[in-house]
Amino acid sequence: MSKFTLEALRKASAQEFAAALGDIFEHSPWVAERVAAKRPFANVRALLDAMTAAVNHATLEEKTALLRAHPDLAGKAARAGVLTKDSSAEQGSAGLDRLSEVEYEAFQRLNTDYRQKHEIPFILCVRRHTKGSILKQFERRIDNAPEREFETALMEVFRIAALRLDQKIESADLGLNGRLSTHVLDNHAGNPAAGMALVLRELSDHDAPRLLVNTRTNKDGRTDAPLISDRPVPIGQYEILFSVADYYRTRSVPLAEPPFLDLVPIRFSVAEPEGHYHVPLLVTPWSYATYRGS
Amino acid sequence: MSKFTLEALRKASAQEFAAALGDIFEHSPWVAERVAAKRPFANVRALLDAMTAAVNHATLEEKTALLRAHPDLAGKAARAGVLTKDSSAEQGSAGLDRLSEVEYEAFQRLNTDYRQKHEIPFILCVRRHTKGSILKQFERRIDNAPEREFETALMEVFRIAALRLDQKIESADLGLNGRLSTHVLDNHAGNPAAGMALVLRELSDHDAPRLLVNTRTNKDGRTDAPLISDRPVPIGQYEILFSVADYYRTRSVPLAEPPFLDLVPIRFSVAEPEGHYHVPLLVTPWSYATYRGS
Amino acid sequence: MSKFTLEALRKASAQEFAAALGDIFEHSPWVAERVAAKRPFANVRALLDAMTAAVNHATLEEKTALLRAHPDLAGKAARAGVLTKDSSAEQGSAGLDRLSEVEYEAFQRLNTDYRQKHEIPFILCVRRHTKGSILKQFERRIDNAPEREFETALMEVFRIAALRLDQKIESADLGLNGRLSTHVLDNHAGNPAAGMALVLRELSDHDAPRLLVNTRTNKDGRTDAPLISDRPVPIGQYEILFSVADYYRTRSVPLAEPPFLDLVPIRFSVAEPEGHYHVPLLVTPWSYATYRGS
Amino acid sequence: MSKFTLEALRKASAQEFAAALGDIFEHSPWVAERVAAKRPFANVRALLDAMTAAVNHATLEEKTALLRAHPDLAGKAARAGVLTKDSSAEQGSAGLDRLSEVEYEAFQRLNTDYRQKHEIPFILCVRRHTKGSILKQFERRIDNAPEREFETALMEVFRIAALRLDQKIESADLGLNGRLSTHVLDNHAGNPAAGMALVLRELSDHDAPRLLVNTRTNKDGRTDAPLISDRPVPIGQYEILFSVADYYRTRSVPLAEPPFLDLVPIRFSVAEPEGHYHVPLLVTPWSYATYRGS
Repeated sequence: MSKFTLEALRKASAQEFAAALGDIFEHSPWVAERVAAKRPFANVRALLDAMTAAVNHATLEEKTALLRAHPDLAGKAARAGVLTKDSSAEQGSAGLDRLSEVEYEAFQRLNTDYRQKHEIPFILCVRRHTKGSILKQFERRIDNAPEREFETALMEVFRIAALRLDQKIESADLGLNGRLSTHVLDNHAGNPAAGMALVLRELSDHDAPRLLVNTRTNKDGRTDAPLISDRPVPIGQYEILFSVADYYRTRSVPLAEPPFLDLVPIRFSVAEPEGHYHVPLLVTPWSYATYRGS
Repeated sequence: MSKFTLEALRKASAQEFAAALGDIFEHSPWVAERVAAKRPFANVRALLDAMTAAVNHATLEEKTALLRAHPDLAGKAARAGVLTKDSSAEQGSAGLDRLSEVEYEAFQRLNTDYRQKHEIPFILCVRRHTKGSILKQFERRIDNAPEREFETALMEVFRIAALRLDQKIESADLGLNGRLSTHVLDNHAGNPAAGMALVLRELSDHDAPRLLVNTRTNKDGRTDAPLISDRPVPIGQYEILFSVADYYRTRSVPLAEPPFLDLVPIRFSVAEPEGHYHVPLLVTPWSYATYRGS
Repeated sequence: MSKFTLEALRKASAQEFAAALGDIFEHSPWVAERVAAKRPFANVRALLDAMTAAVNHATLEEKTALLRAHPDLAGKAARAGVLTKDSSAEQGSAGLDRLSEVEYEAFQRLNTDYRQKHEIPFILCVRRHTKGSILKQFERRIDNAPEREFETALMEVFRIAALRLDQKIESADLGLNGRLSTHVLDNHAGNPAAGMALVLRELSDHDAPRLLVNTRTNKDGRTDAPLISDRPVPIGQYEILFSVADYYRTRSVPLAEPPFLDLVPIRFSVAEPEGHYHVPLLVTPWSYATYRGS
Repeated sequence: MSKFTLEALRKASAQEFAAALGDIFEHSPWVAERVAAKRPFANVRALLDAMTAAVNHATLEEKTALLRAHPDLAGKAARAGVLTKDSSAEQGSAGLDRLSEVEYEAFQRLNTDYRQKHEIPFILCVRRHTKGSILKQFERRIDNAPEREFETALMEVFRIAALRLDQKIESADLGLNGRLSTHVLDNHAGNPAAGMALVLRELSDHDAPRLLVNTRTNKDGRTDAPLISDRPVPIGQYEILFSVADYYRTRSVPLAEPPFLDLVPIRFSVAEPEGHYHVPLLVTPWSYATYRGS
């Protein structure tokens, strides 16, 4: 996707500007049109605030239309391949394009019930979620009062818009990204654990764990890149599996047979997608510790 | 099983003595017969040593016959229900009576190959093992030289005899039992974690985890009984799952949603069945540590 | 000191009974006299409760006289050697017989001011305190309202009585004793740290640390006896110094020169004299952890 | 001190070059003179290597003269104020200008004995040491064979030269600097401990601790600057004192009175002045852990 600079958006005609940002709100180019005259914007945050204000000041009918312009999650439009490019990428990032038939049916049932009760589709900024947390949100929110859901849906629309804007504009820094990282300290040798294999997996109540990263610590005991970065860390449960016994074998540290610790699992959940989750391992062949670091 | 006291064995006739201990060595009552005249024994260890010596001083033919008197592991005799009572209980304790068809075939293949190469059945003190470690031993030992296997098989026969003697004699203390225990310290509140649910599971490369214990910590943060005791702790891999989030919820400690730590898994292996494995958990809602304690 | 059994107290004449327990309340044998007729007592707790009730039901004059019968802490009577045997032992246990001239003057000043304001001596169950915490209590309580101090003084009198009774009666179990213990786990080797030298010291804001225990861990990584037991653990600040480098040197573990960790200090305070303070050390040559255990 | 760039040294006349670097080796400008013709140098390391080679290829008489050109440590020249500027700064950095009379005498005795035995002054790169480790080196090395000491002294001269060069040349990066840093994680709240007061002190067998840094953690739980950086970390023993109770009080976390943990001391030694010593604290009101991190 080609990105725009703020400078280019400033120089663009009103029409060009609206075309560039017409997709930020789903099927609702009028939001971009209404803020074109408010240029220039000091930064991306100011542009986002202006677009949010445009929606907030719109009529109830316009707001309702905006919400209704959103597709169902894992719905028929997705199956038919008629989603907007943004919606398609977003739903795919959370695995909604890889549902089992049973899961698909569950989503359809929830979509139908939700629309019937709230008269809008269920809207969630899925880039901030895993499949499991989407279902939990769905089940939790469906029982809310319609007025409250209307507000919640708008808030999620603003989150979706923010992430779309963040991707569309060069050097945007809206603070929407989180980070998941690790660090392995070998307390037996008193130095960083270099070359330890580890995998990051997303856990789910229903499915097998999904492999996200398969890597190895570098000489500082860290991974060359954070395990997750440059995006929100999806709300959900994760597990890092550290290959502790293999690591000590390559260092010729005597181990029991079988070794007391072999693959060490650290299981934790992410609740704030914009947060920094640092999950280190302090380890010897006979002990380990972990904590939420920073 | 009725138990004998050392005193009763001392007073018994030679015939009664041999009858009482005729099962200690599989289908080989001659071992008991040969030590009857050496009574009295100061303690069970002395009796065991005498029986071991009787075997060691037997002829090569007698030793070979003793080894050949043992059944295959998970073999046809077991399926046919014609094992000695002791052998049946021993094989059952390691789950050899619950094999899938595929596992059963694997055992038959190994049994046949082993007998062909070594001219004795594969003998292992299975009370010291899990199904997984039995298979590993089998695969490892089959390639040994026959002379070495003959010695190893005898050593395992002595281990089997020791455990049988330990069970048959009142207050025997042969030091054959290990122990697995845990202790949960709540470092957030500064006291033992009382009432935390936990399960102990045996892990396996091929099967689903097998639930061994489902319990809850008492007010000292320990379990009322050790997780495993009064027997060797089978060589194998285990996992304790601690219900950390539930524990803190009942104490009204604010948690993230979903909580950073929920079910905390501690995965470890036992290599010395006679050892004491103390596997504590030091925990807060945001950190934990474990180690091999004592 | 000879101890009495509950049985002997039951059989004693009223006079003998009063003589045996006449010292439980300072210079106030009338308390024992009034409960003699209430025998037998099911246990020591019932006897203590009866004595406490006798004081609570006494007249205001009697209560005032009881409080005034107590000596000053570190006062002139102590210097003159005219304290009761119990008071003398109690004040000595907290080091009040080892004051510097400056400290002695401070106590005299506080004693005078306190008596002037509250018309009773400052009463504190000093077996539950260190010199430092006695001074803190003194400075804190002197500003209270006299009515409140009267109640506080009575409560301390009951604490003193309970400890005296506990020492005077065979097998009393009034739950007045605390315990301080430690345990060293060698996470480098995966077993208890045996033979590690350690000292326990009482810290003070003004004085040099006072050595209380100089010992070595046994093969279970514990000390043969708790560091403090069979008495309340005095409120105050403590430090355990663990000789970590020496321990690893005797085990031929390679260390830096000088070693990263040598004498490891764990500094903590006791707030509940009747509590169990377990202060373990989990250690490698490059790391350690401690916590309040149980 | 004004610094030179490599470029300026390249363009300088041979005379200017020798003048600029005449102090790198104590009272021995000939070293700089001999390498002037070998310009240009690709980097500071190449320049240092050339100077080191010039010394190594010098005659025994020249080497001996170079060693003898060094002053005694804490010697009469220092007292008389006739040291070179570099030597004076170096000896001061290790506290050799603040000796007690007793220490001064000890140094004089060692200086005299050492010169008598080895016929050179005792030479040590004191920027890599604390007073205590200087004395230990002195006592250890004095018994060596003179040939070995001659080699050791030369090696120390090269270390001194390297550090002088590092300071004299713009953007030198000879890898001579170490670092000492800390990081406080609040495992009770699950985030970095911000605003915790801490002090770093140098410990000594004989003197009171010497305060090096008095600071407070920032919002990431770190200190704004490393505790020691941009220089070798002197070999010696250190203590960081963390104000744990004050930190939790400002966060309204309930504590015992007195708090179980108040000032938490972490005591450790530095053995490699060029190393990175990261000494974090993981803490709750009831537990803490530390380790050599990176």
